[in-house]
Amino acid sequence: MTGIPAFDHHSLGQRVLFGTGQARAHLRTAVVDLGASAPMVLSGHSDRAVADAVLGGLAIESRFDDVVPHVPVEQAEQARRAAHESGADLLISIGGGSTTGLAKAVALTTGLPIVAVPTTYAGSEATNVWGITEAARKTTGVDPRVLPHTIVYDAELTATLPKELSVASMCNALAHCIDSLWAPRANPITTALATEGIRALAAALPEVAYRPESIDGRENALYGAYLAAVAFAGAGSGLHHKICHVLGGRFDLPHAQTHTIVLPHVLAFNATHAPAGVERVAEALAATDAIDGLRTLLISAEAPTALKDLGLHEEELDEAVDLVLPAVPPSNPRPVTRANLARLLRDAWSGSLMV
Amino acid sequence: MTGIPAFDHHSLGQRVLFGTGQARAHLRTAVVDLGASAPMVLSGHSDRAVADAVLGGLAIESRFDDVVPHVPVEQAEQARRAAHESGADLLISIGGGSTTGLAKAVALTTGLPIVAVPTTYAGSEATNVWGITEAARKTTGVDPRVLPHTIVYDAELTATLPKELSVASMCNALAHCIDSLWAPRANPITTALATEGIRALAAALPEVAYRPESIDGRENALYGAYLAAVAFAGAGSGLHHKICHVLGGRFDLPHAQTHTIVLPHVLAFNATHAPAGVERVAEALAATDAIDGLRTLLISAEAPTALKDLGLHEEELDEAVDLVLPAVPPSNPRPVTRANLARLLRDAWSGSLMV
Repeated sequence: MTGIPAFDHHSLGQRVLFGTGQARAHLRTAVVDLGASAPMVLSGHSDRAVADAVLGGLAIESRFDDVVPHVPVEQAEQARRAAHESGADLLISIGGGSTTGLAKAVALTTGLPIVAVPTTYAGSEATNVWGITEAARKTTGVDPRVLPHTIVYDAELTATLPKELSVASMCNALAHCIDSLWAPRANPITTALATEGIRALAAALPEVAYRPESIDGRENALYGAYLAAVAFAGAGSGLHHKICHVLGGRFDLPHAQTHTIVLPHVLAFNATHAPAGVERVAEALAATDAIDGLRTLLISAEAPTALKDLGLHEEELDEAVDLVLPAVPPSNPRPVTRANLARLLRDAWSGSLMV
Repeated sequence: MTGIPAFDHHSLGQRVLFGTGQARAHLRTAVVDLGASAPMVLSGHSDRAVADAVLGGLAIESRFDDVVPHVPVEQAEQARRAAHESGADLLISIGGGSTTGLAKAVALTTGLPIVAVPTTYAGSEATNVWGITEAARKTTGVDPRVLPHTIVYDAELTATLPKELSVASMCNALAHCIDSLWAPRANPITTALATEGIRALAAALPEVAYRPESIDGRENALYGAYLAAVAFAGAGSGLHHKICHVLGGRFDLPHAQTHTIVLPHVLAFNATHAPAGVERVAEALAATDAIDGLRTLLISAEAPTALKDLGLHEEELDEAVDLVLPAVPPSNPRPVTRANLARLLRDAWSGSLMV
């Protein structure tokens, strides 16, 4: 039999209130249980109506409803001042990753607890990672203060998220699950949670792709995205994320589509060197072979298949290899060389695996 | 497809340092990272040598090495005074459930953090449940202060645990996993963790039963017992534990053996009413049928099979039914009646499932 390898795992303490149509009631429960009397609400402009509905008649101290993407430091400062001036004792974020991100930026300096009500599948609500953008440069960090105290998940809030965006976001979550298998702090616990996330996302992907209004599909998507974030927070970033980081940062490729295209190639690249984890992926995908299972799933969700279709030029591949190579995590199970990395990127560029 | 039912889950924040032969180094890491300078060490008399080895040259403020079973209130008071008088800023427990339990009793009133170094498969180190015995009566409660901050798991520390005790303790952990499927706060997260625990325990049970010195087996046992405790802390006690509580409390049957015998009967009782969860159990047991898989596993570990062999008399079964019936959790998936409960208990008494 196989033993359990040594590991150092941090479980993050958090309450998860999950229930379709229950966001309003669950938010009240969360606020009351925290003993808060002066919440500050953060939401994006496009989430204003959703926020109103979720808040209902909840007594709030102040609202900050003009959240912009990527948490610019100017907006973080502004929100911190607003929190201070209103005497807020709780932050309620209602929105996607940027809204959660702004609440985290406020919590980072104020120590205020966060109740997060996600309206997308971003997953940021389940991590202790924060990010702030200053002069077009994103600084990120890890701090226990930014982990939301409570998450309120309600699949109805994601039901109007457009199909393409939903699928891209779910593929991104799937990438977090699979990449966590060989990330620097990967351990049996993060692998078990990632596997559970893959199950949920594999069930949700075709459902949401073909019946975007399906609440069952949205529930599984939300649950899977949560687990993907927990696995990612525990295990860290693996080879897949390093590649996508370079492609997004240097060549300005779109985040979620890039992840979706690169993922099966990284899985195929590592598969023979991480057989136990990859077998768990196959099982979660209800497939005999993990790569086949993932390919079938992504094709069924009409996901993009080749980096060349995103505008990456063939002659840029060499530079991509140069940039990825020094960032490869030592934890990667298969030794990465210039030659095999170049092959991986070329395959992802041409979409060779997906035909 | 099936959606995700509403739930309210609390993930407990905790660090887990796992590594065979690394208890000494990991304990140092835990103490340093907590910034503690005056640890008080708690251990049982029989764990004294193990504690010495694990502590090595670690600077400690005081030792309390006379831990007795069941956390008597007198000993809890004595340990609290000792912690106060020594100016302890950290509690290090090295031992089984009673030692962890005493550290929890001290943490409950002092708020001191705990680093737990388990030497058995009790699992108490992964829960926020405390218990104190006063005048032969055990009071229990839940408090965030008693959850150990860090667990240091080292399979070598359990390698000398006698085979019978090991198997009984692992079956008890298996019961926590399976009973969590239908416990009051059961949710998809606790079920995923329980399923992972079943995998590990199913691998470990025959290995430890036939090769008690196997470190691979001990690693899986420790990992499985940890997950069982996490699932139990999250989901609470189900029908199985209510039955065993009555049998142990009223008829003085031995804890672990009782659990082992009753478990397959409760699984068979609920199986048709909890098909999704039971299918996950079968998968984790690598069996086509969960009940068959559990039976085979328990027989392979030479586990006890009938309550009559523990000294329970046939004529006591009616009283047992009377006592269990009012304690049945409303969450149990199959409605429990006097008739079907009596049948369950009679089957467990005669061992009918296990022949």
